[in-house]
Amino acid sequence: MTQNIYDNEEFFAGYSKLPRSERGLLGAPEWPSLRAMLPEIAGLRVLDLGCGFGWFCRRAQEQSALSVTGIDVSEKMLARAKAESDPAIQYHRADMDSLTLVRGSYDLIYSSLAFHYLKNLGALMGEISGALVPGGRLVFSVEHPMVTAPRYPGWQKDADGTRLWPVNHYLEDGARETNWLVHGVVKQHRSMTTYVNMLIANRLQLLHIEEWGPTDAQAAAMPSLLDERQRPNFLLVSAGRAQ
Amino acid sequence: MTQNIYDNEEFFAGYSKLPRSERGLLGAPEWPSLRAMLPEIAGLRVLDLGCGFGWFCRRAQEQSALSVTGIDVSEKMLARAKAESDPAIQYHRADMDSLTLVRGSYDLIYSSLAFHYLKNLGALMGEISGALVPGGRLVFSVEHPMVTAPRYPGWQKDADGTRLWPVNHYLEDGARETNWLVHGVVKQHRSMTTYVNMLIANRLQLLHIEEWGPTDAQAAAMPSLLDERQRPNFLLVSAGRAQ
Repeated sequence: MTQNIYDNEEFFAGYSKLPRSERGLLGAPEWPSLRAMLPEIAGLRVLDLGCGFGWFCRRAQEQSALSVTGIDVSEKMLARAKAESDPAIQYHRADMDSLTLVRGSYDLIYSSLAFHYLKNLGALMGEISGALVPGGRLVFSVEHPMVTAPRYPGWQKDADGTRLWPVNHYLEDGARETNWLVHGVVKQHRSMTTYVNMLIANRLQLLHIEEWGPTDAQAAAMPSLLDERQRPNFLLVSAGRAQ
Repeated sequence: MTQNIYDNEEFFAGYSKLPRSERGLLGAPEWPSLRAMLPEIAGLRVLDLGCGFGWFCRRAQEQSALSVTGIDVSEKMLARAKAESDPAIQYHRADMDSLTLVRGSYDLIYSSLAFHYLKNLGALMGEISGALVPGGRLVFSVEHPMVTAPRYPGWQKDADGTRLWPVNHYLEDGARETNWLVHGVVKQHRSMTTYVNMLIANRLQLLHIEEWGPTDAQAAAMPSLLDERQRPNFLLVSAGRAQ
């Protein structure tokens, strides 16, 4: 089973104070880009894998989705999601490393910053492909492979004083232990090659990718986001289920 | 017009001594991976963009291609290609930044380590898409975006003494002046996002990508190739022309 760091008291307390936890989708700078990759949601059967506090599920319901299901491994996050959501949204607790999904049951599967925790993403991708109707859409974000690759992640500086990001161990897929909010958070590094070929092997055709960086307006409002142009933190992907 | 560095005397002399110039395809460690991405060549109309000394063109002819055309901007390289090839192979000198191709005239378009010199790759990709028959294949390699991104490329070391590669300016597509064989070689950096979305926008559907690293046998024979696992030097892509 994947490490369930979100139910660690200290991690949960720290995570709950992030802008994306307090303000929801609008607190996530990459959200406008992800939103632009989504289909019209009205009438769709929507699944959110790693739904957390339920921000996206509630938005999908507001946009008149036919049904909305959220899955997460964290008891604490689901408790808050349920408390803040309409009972029509279905929340289920499950380990996504051993999840099975009903075939042909969703039009849109969404996942924000969850897949890089999973050991067994290949199997989940097969489930996703089977669960989507032909023409259905998978839209997800993960930490960028350049971020998850190195043994010692952290900004350094080049000869001009410009920030640089150290990359190594890039082609070695597997676990990386990092310190984020607490010590010992385990993430799974995968190269771009692994992500892209995993989609193709599961009949999920790439429609768009984005290595996210801030717009000029976002950078003006929050200059620290400019680092993302040196080395993007997030990889956003949209893929369509082949007929 | 793109810088024609291959016709610079000093560059040409240095390039001519590389293993991939003296030994051809077998001198390029990424060739077995590229070869695996190619369709059966017998009977195909084949175009090589940036054909250099004509190694791939000659191989395609040996494999019974229906026709073989090689295009390059370098007079010196084409002179050697013609001198060493059967006259049935057609070689043409052209600047690929302003190339036009006859629609529906090729089954396979191949390009090895040429696209990252071009300023106007978007226009060329449109020509490629138009020139391929539906179901036709584009197989190409470029320097990896992590390699072309930084202002000061060059290996450094991390706290363990492991080599690391410094990345910055990643989301800033555009020219980078580097020193390789001679000073002032100009390459065009493009992010993975740019390459992938450019293919999709031109109806070229991704079939496979590979960020190239050595096999264990290759690494045993040439340990210096192990650096490629820290940060791959080449991006290999196979795409199919949509119907």
